[in-house]
Amino acid sequence: MKRARARHKPCALKELEVSVSELGLGYESDEIVLFRYCSGTCETAVRNYDLSLKNMRLKKKIRKEKVRARPCCRPLAYDDDVSFLDTYNRYYTVNELSAKECGCV
Amino acid sequence: MKRARARHKPCALKELEVSVSELGLGYESDEIVLFRYCSGTCETAVRNYDLSLKNMRLKKKIRKEKVRARPCCRPLAYDDDVSFLDTYNRYYTVNELSAKECGCV
Repeated sequence: MKRARARHKPCALKELEVSVSELGLGYESDEIVLFRYCSGTCETAVRNYDLSLKNMRLKKKIRKEKVRARPCCRPLAYDDDVSFLDTYNRYYTVNELSAKECGCV
Repeated sequence: MKRARARHKPCALKELEVSVSELGLGYESDEIVLFRYCSGTCETAVRNYDLSLKNMRLKKKIRKEKVRARPCCRPLAYDDDVSFLDTYNRYYTVNELSAKECGCV
């Protein structure tokens, strides 16, 4: 008997509270930030572009090229810069950390 | 001796002249269209978002979720609708077929 496949949800914005240290960007700080990210699939967002690109590939009209013939669930915009103090009391600002809006691009 | 790896070029707009039939969308027509697409890699476009998302994955803070922690080279905009006559003289219009602008989203 085959197990049911995990049902993938459509592309949407999700959030997670994490410490700055946990972000893994190299900063040591216990300050908590709201990390928002894009999660889900884009099956319903396939365009004529994607279908045609897939065919150009199959027909070897496009070869040895890095092309993506499927929409990506990605941020359409990013939140404002995030500022924090690290454990040595140094002040940092990081940009494009958290998503503001997601879409199937 | 190892063979050199293909050097991937940065994300850019490319073009190809193809017949409507070749697009593989199910239409039979010898009319030629200019199919423009996005090709290349986005290594230089990695954001704090991507690095953090990758870490959240490694730390199992995000599990069983479909997330993409790398920028995609995709159309930022599509060309105008394309119209053509098929071999039976029927008129069709297809949208979002060809890219107008590419970017690392």
